[in-house]
Amino acid sequence: MGTTQLETVPEPKYWHLRTVLSEALDQDFEVGEVLPNERELAARFGVARATLRQALEQLELEGRLQRRRGVGTTVAPPRVGVAVGSTGPSWPGEAGDGWQAVDCAEGVPTAAVAKLLGIAADQPVHTVRRTRVTHGQVVAAELLHVPAASVPGLSGIDAPSGPARARAVLRELQRQTLEGQDRAVELGSARADDAKELDRLPGAPVLLVTTRYITATGTAAVAVATYRADTCRLTFGDSGDVEISHPGDTERVAS
Amino acid sequence: MGTTQLETVPEPKYWHLRTVLSEALDQDFEVGEVLPNERELAARFGVARATLRQALEQLELEGRLQRRRGVGTTVAPPRVGVAVGSTGPSWPGEAGDGWQAVDCAEGVPTAAVAKLLGIAADQPVHTVRRTRVTHGQVVAAELLHVPAASVPGLSGIDAPSGPARARAVLRELQRQTLEGQDRAVELGSARADDAKELDRLPGAPVLLVTTRYITATGTAAVAVATYRADTCRLTFGDSGDVEISHPGDTERVAS
Repeated sequence: MGTTQLETVPEPKYWHLRTVLSEALDQDFEVGEVLPNERELAARFGVARATLRQALEQLELEGRLQRRRGVGTTVAPPRVGVAVGSTGPSWPGEAGDGWQAVDCAEGVPTAAVAKLLGIAADQPVHTVRRTRVTHGQVVAAELLHVPAASVPGLSGIDAPSGPARARAVLRELQRQTLEGQDRAVELGSARADDAKELDRLPGAPVLLVTTRYITATGTAAVAVATYRADTCRLTFGDSGDVEISHPGDTERVAS
Repeated sequence: MGTTQLETVPEPKYWHLRTVLSEALDQDFEVGEVLPNERELAARFGVARATLRQALEQLELEGRLQRRRGVGTTVAPPRVGVAVGSTGPSWPGEAGDGWQAVDCAEGVPTAAVAKLLGIAADQPVHTVRRTRVTHGQVVAAELLHVPAASVPGLSGIDAPSGPARARAVLRELQRQTLEGQDRAVELGSARADDAKELDRLPGAPVLLVTTRYITATGTAAVAVATYRADTCRLTFGDSGDVEISHPGDTERVAS
């Protein structure tokens, strides 16, 4: 693969290089293997460092490569399927939901959260922080917003903060009858506190999952979960995970 | 907001700048408004051009900004909610699914598609190309892979290609009894042909939705849909869309 061929294709150079590199990853590299450095790769493919960097960024976005300080660029393992949708609506914290309560705080909601909850901006809200661990790695961080009005039985004797308080809020929430829930998935970037928990830099691409829990009287709670976009594939369904050999690679799956 | 404050915060500069810019977008700009050029913005916030560019990239990732050649950087409208999950499994092409059949081709599958379908790599597959239009804009492109064995009634007298052929394949597929379906959502980058259809550059961030359609005899079809990540929010649910005032902004929703 020399310079000439890269220059004569109509698509952007970095995109063509990305395709060439993707094939090289399949054929010549193992998962976890460290790639040669940028200077060497740029020379090997006859491209400028900037072009190479763009191609590497693409492959990182697709989950094919991981770049870590002090380690370099390595070939990423296949993404992990994380079940998000289930057969029916269920409250956060019900058995087997995969989340661990970390902390709980009380305060007034931001304007956006108040709007999602359908409450006035001065109504008190419990915010439960949870994390989700898969294969020993934190794959998601969540803020669950529960208006005080949704957990009227929450007693003052319960722990004032920490995981015990979080569990008390979840327990009270589960006393309500859940009528339905809806979800939205979109691309976002990790906030500083989530980034820390997910072992990423602030601004790393994440998949944001917003879930609204609905009872007969309205929205009882709203969860905003931040999933690592580099390592996670969110699965929804009524018959198990979609099994994809290497789902990061659009090219091979889609074409 | 001067240089000093940006230098004394512990988070990366571009991340802090991103937060400051995000607030400025809320307060001082309208949707569709063109931002001042990079030189001017960098001077206004007392940062290097590289830092400014990183912050702008973040805000683009979050759907707050759009950057287009010849236009510049504009304030993006809120993302559009696109319903992906429904109350139950349904075949592609059933009434009201929002997709338009564009074309159909026959060939052998790639290794990844064959694996998803659970067929041998030399089995013929019909690949239906569809697009999804919302508010007059193409928001997604899809390749639906249907093994010839899933549509045994497809006749030679049907149109050999084009939208008519695609519709014939969908019609035959719908004769089967759908037992279930599962979905996976992950981050990807737009392939050249999808990018063209979505009016994006190759490599633009997209949300990849892989759907497997399951009958009593196995996987009858697999769809890989590519949604614009900048403008789309994928919604799943049993009670309508999750309404978020400006879902691109994690900060306000999650904190």
